[in-house]
Amino acid sequence: MDKIPILRLGNFLLVTIQVDLYDRLALNLEADLVQMVNKTNARGVLIDISAVTIVDSFMGRIIGNIASMSKILDAETVVVGMQPAVAITLIELGLPLKGVHTALDMERGMSLLKSMIDIDEEDIDQESTDDDIITQ
Amino acid sequence: MDKIPILRLGNFLLVTIQVDLYDRLALNLEADLVQMVNKTNARGVLIDISAVTIVDSFMGRIIGNIASMSKILDAETVVVGMQPAVAITLIELGLPLKGVHTALDMERGMSLLKSMIDIDEEDIDQESTDDDIITQ
Repeated sequence: MDKIPILRLGNFLLVTIQVDLYDRLALNLEADLVQMVNKTNARGVLIDISAVTIVDSFMGRIIGNIASMSKILDAETVVVGMQPAVAITLIELGLPLKGVHTALDMERGMSLLKSMIDIDEEDIDQESTDDDIITQ
Repeated sequence: MDKIPILRLGNFLLVTIQVDLYDRLALNLEADLVQMVNKTNARGVLIDISAVTIVDSFMGRIIGNIASMSKILDAETVVVGMQPAVAITLIELGLPLKGVHTALDMERGMSLLKSMIDIDEEDIDQESTDDDIITQ
């Protein structure tokens, strides 16, 4: 089992990290996730790390990378279910996960993603309305 | 990491199996899942086994057990993402997973669960309508 499964849920992709992310597994996950975002036109990525009890700087970097890559492909990333001890360790390691949205659990993460996508769509609607006004 | 995380998604619970289910892990999963069904009033359980490439009779039995336990607590179980090789092995082992619903992927599993729950609710509506007629 050297692949972390990526589940599709409507517009979102869901990844549950349950095993230690060693080098090859993490790189595979990055590549698979970016390909899935592209293939499925996903607008959001939910990463559940509730089973992760030990975190190191490598894992912090991987999560940051995934968020940045998804952002370029126009998908938001939300990390959910972080254990308190993991949050403490990340800050002590000097990794505040900038650019990564977080939520307490799956349901809150899902509604956060939905609200972010709604805002995006409103912006687009607004822009197209502005265009209409200009062309009139 | 000796626990498999159980994610709540509205009325459903979602479990992704990514590691080999050895004895203690499987028993923990059974216990956790039954408790979560009870605590969250979940109506459905989705088990994703797309990362499982090797299956034995123990794992087949665990999946059957989870489905039976959930059923007693009024929740349906759908197994999604089974690899073709796993399906072949299960049948060769004489484990046709009776009583367990299956679907090709997450989205189909979700809609199968929704349709099963809708049917249940229609039955209840029907019964209450019948009662109304009797009491009138």
